[in-house]
Amino acid sequence: MDTHDFRRLGHELIDWVADYRERIAEYPVMSRVRPGEVAAKLPAEPPRRAEGLATISADLERIVLPGITHWNHPGWFAYFPSNTDLSSVLADLVSSGLGVQGMSWQTSPAATEVEDVVMEWLRQMLGLSDAFTGVIHDTASTATLCALLCARERSSNFSQDRGGLQAEEAPLVVYASDQAHSSVPKAAHLAGFGADNLRLLETDDDHALRLDALETAVREDVAAGRRPCALVAAVGTTATTALDPLAGMAQLAARHGLWLHVDAALAGTAMICPEQRWMWEGVERADSVVLNPHKWMGTGFDLSAYYVRDPEHLVRVMSTDPSYLRTAQDGLVRNLRDWGIPLGRRFRALKLWFLIREHGVEGLQARVRRDLGNAAWLAEQVDAASGWQRLAPVPLQTVCLRHVPPALQDDEPALAVHNLAVADRVNRAGRSYVTPSLLKGRQMIRVSIGALATEREHVEALWRELRGAAVALPGARP
Amino acid sequence: MDTHDFRRLGHELIDWVADYRERIAEYPVMSRVRPGEVAAKLPAEPPRRAEGLATISADLERIVLPGITHWNHPGWFAYFPSNTDLSSVLADLVSSGLGVQGMSWQTSPAATEVEDVVMEWLRQMLGLSDAFTGVIHDTASTATLCALLCARERSSNFSQDRGGLQAEEAPLVVYASDQAHSSVPKAAHLAGFGADNLRLLETDDDHALRLDALETAVREDVAAGRRPCALVAAVGTTATTALDPLAGMAQLAARHGLWLHVDAALAGTAMICPEQRWMWEGVERADSVVLNPHKWMGTGFDLSAYYVRDPEHLVRVMSTDPSYLRTAQDGLVRNLRDWGIPLGRRFRALKLWFLIREHGVEGLQARVRRDLGNAAWLAEQVDAASGWQRLAPVPLQTVCLRHVPPALQDDEPALAVHNLAVADRVNRAGRSYVTPSLLKGRQMIRVSIGALATEREHVEALWRELRGAAVALPGARP
Repeated sequence: MDTHDFRRLGHELIDWVADYRERIAEYPVMSRVRPGEVAAKLPAEPPRRAEGLATISADLERIVLPGITHWNHPGWFAYFPSNTDLSSVLADLVSSGLGVQGMSWQTSPAATEVEDVVMEWLRQMLGLSDAFTGVIHDTASTATLCALLCARERSSNFSQDRGGLQAEEAPLVVYASDQAHSSVPKAAHLAGFGADNLRLLETDDDHALRLDALETAVREDVAAGRRPCALVAAVGTTATTALDPLAGMAQLAARHGLWLHVDAALAGTAMICPEQRWMWEGVERADSVVLNPHKWMGTGFDLSAYYVRDPEHLVRVMSTDPSYLRTAQDGLVRNLRDWGIPLGRRFRALKLWFLIREHGVEGLQARVRRDLGNAAWLAEQVDAASGWQRLAPVPLQTVCLRHVPPALQDDEPALAVHNLAVADRVNRAGRSYVTPSLLKGRQMIRVSIGALATEREHVEALWRELRGAAVALPGARP
Repeated sequence: MDTHDFRRLGHELIDWVADYRERIAEYPVMSRVRPGEVAAKLPAEPPRRAEGLATISADLERIVLPGITHWNHPGWFAYFPSNTDLSSVLADLVSSGLGVQGMSWQTSPAATEVEDVVMEWLRQMLGLSDAFTGVIHDTASTATLCALLCARERSSNFSQDRGGLQAEEAPLVVYASDQAHSSVPKAAHLAGFGADNLRLLETDDDHALRLDALETAVREDVAAGRRPCALVAAVGTTATTALDPLAGMAQLAARHGLWLHVDAALAGTAMICPEQRWMWEGVERADSVVLNPHKWMGTGFDLSAYYVRDPEHLVRVMSTDPSYLRTAQDGLVRNLRDWGIPLGRRFRALKLWFLIREHGVEGLQARVRRDLGNAAWLAEQVDAASGWQRLAPVPLQTVCLRHVPPALQDDEPALAVHNLAVADRVNRAGRSYVTPSLLKGRQMIRVSIGALATEREHVEALWRELRGAAVALPGARP
């Protein structure tokens, strides 16, 4: 594409994106297309001749937009906030425009050094000590896999340089709670530990890991000749944002030589507010920490921040040193290809640089506090409303609730059907989108607050909608 | 950022990117900053208050641009072509603007279905049969790791569901050539096979894997009680674009039950030209194939295309099924989170959609043929020039050459110093950028042709520069 066409279409698409964001609240939050509907609008074969992109805005409206679920909608209460502040859209435009490949320092020094600086900014913002060094990964799933691989290689004294994990005698074991994110078992499986060597420990009434259960499991494994290797602590579980007892876990990890990985994918963003940092007391003793600025903070997907205490260990696990990648600056600089799984790297640091400059630390803090306040407000409403139940504490921005009509009080299957129907009714109305989910066998409606556009009025509207849906359904009649 | 500021800055940055691309040939290809120079221009602490991005274009000029190595420069002959056609810049703008998270079909059906369709288009363009199904990954490194994980789980009959790789009795073994990309040993290490169970087999005079060496290695491993598991074939090695004997490897893989993974990261793009497909004869028997449209084809990093014969196997290795990710459409649609390592996914398919529409298949073919022709031309010049040596066949767009002045004829250390000096002189001049590299102990200058902007005149200019640098250096004097 030549620059003439690029300018014309680029200006058009900037306005298209701005228009989209301005009218986003008019769309149903959740896409209403049926499976196959988007694909059916596209030709089955690629065009032989150049078509150009002259009609692209119209095609985006006709083909793509109906198939979009609007994560930046003010009525977004599903999954987790995945905010793409418009500053990130600009940062991605610059990153793509420069066409940078940041695999080594030399292949674009700015990509590495801006990442060095903004990851250092973020470290300060989180209140982490300078014992930690950061690197950007795509997702927490990848970062957690890296953490377990580093744990495996530390416990096995670099089995990868010899016979691999398959040559180890005594099995290495990984520990987390039964509320750990699905990426934890996935990483344990992929890293070769195997399901038999993964302990997903029971949680307490607040859905946090029980230290006594952990201690017992470790002791039993040691007694059986297995080797405790890694421990994953969730600061903010996915289902309910439960807080694992990190300080106690850190002590236990130190005692047994476990790699301690802290998964603060969502909650990490709240740590930019000093008053929230009690939540991850003990984090300074972690070997690795992951948080996703692409969730609540707003950098736009994908930008996962991974902090480690021992960069040399990470690099030794991840590095390759072929002749064709050596440069004169090796040893003087960070070659970030050696800090993760992929060789190539985009210039993702621009998104963090743009976001922090655009809002300042105080601006970002104010938004986090707004969302915490909105969640606390909703929790209060639920607690005060008869026929409604809150299923978990609300330390952050997620409220787990359900409607319990008197007639269905102790009938879990009926409650499940009823609450699924409530969520479905709200979601179909299109003004809000919540995630129905199971919590230890109980059907709940999970309300995750924190889209950039979500103000108190939107949370109030959701609460009205939930109550309206509940009373409109047959099961609700007393 | 509000839409008013976004429009203003967005229009400004569209023009900034266009201006950058128009003047790109004026920059030295390789950045000239010293380590730490970019970082020193940034504050050591994040701004407390919002600064906004009003000065962003100026900051990009002053801080970022000096630290950019220009992969889209017409004098780009280093590493590999990493083309970002301007259509991809627009696609990324739309992707970021929509702020899509495509982890499940429901979380934005268009992200999944456009990917379904364009990966099908690409499959047809490559001449692959419909036995293959495609998915987009970030990089070939990640795709190759997925391939080895799938191989591991197939050979071990899903050890991940039991005691993991660490519970296996007989070691699983991976095979590739000593010219395999660094991502192959990295993946073998990370997947837990261990260095002792990775055979990097010797290559022939054309730097391709030797079938007899492979056959012997497999036989020896079987005799020793080890289990041959996976075989990686390079269609176009990184150093010289050597072509492993894929058809013979496929036969051997079938005979011994090996997972056959084809790494065509760079060369895969050439397969859109039917006359090049002899290069990967046998590909139809592969279990998995990876190619990077973000290299030579032009989609902009990152977009790696991974094709598999058995999607169910891939999904079984990669899937997790927590309650909070279940949707009503599961079973009817592809949930692409289960086709790779990360859970979250960007809307990368837009880049392929935009690129193919913008250029048409014939336009993309014409560009590939242009680059093949330019490489053949350079190879002819080298062959015809006295004092110059070509170190490998040129089936694609990479020419491996060196200058051999008569005085240094058999003095390898002196030749290395001399050719490093030649490459350094060319690179410092700033009009072209080549990668010096070692090929089986011999220092070479690797010329990788295929940037979008690189026409014959730029290859001619490089050849003049190389010869000029060679005669200007002391070692060249007869």
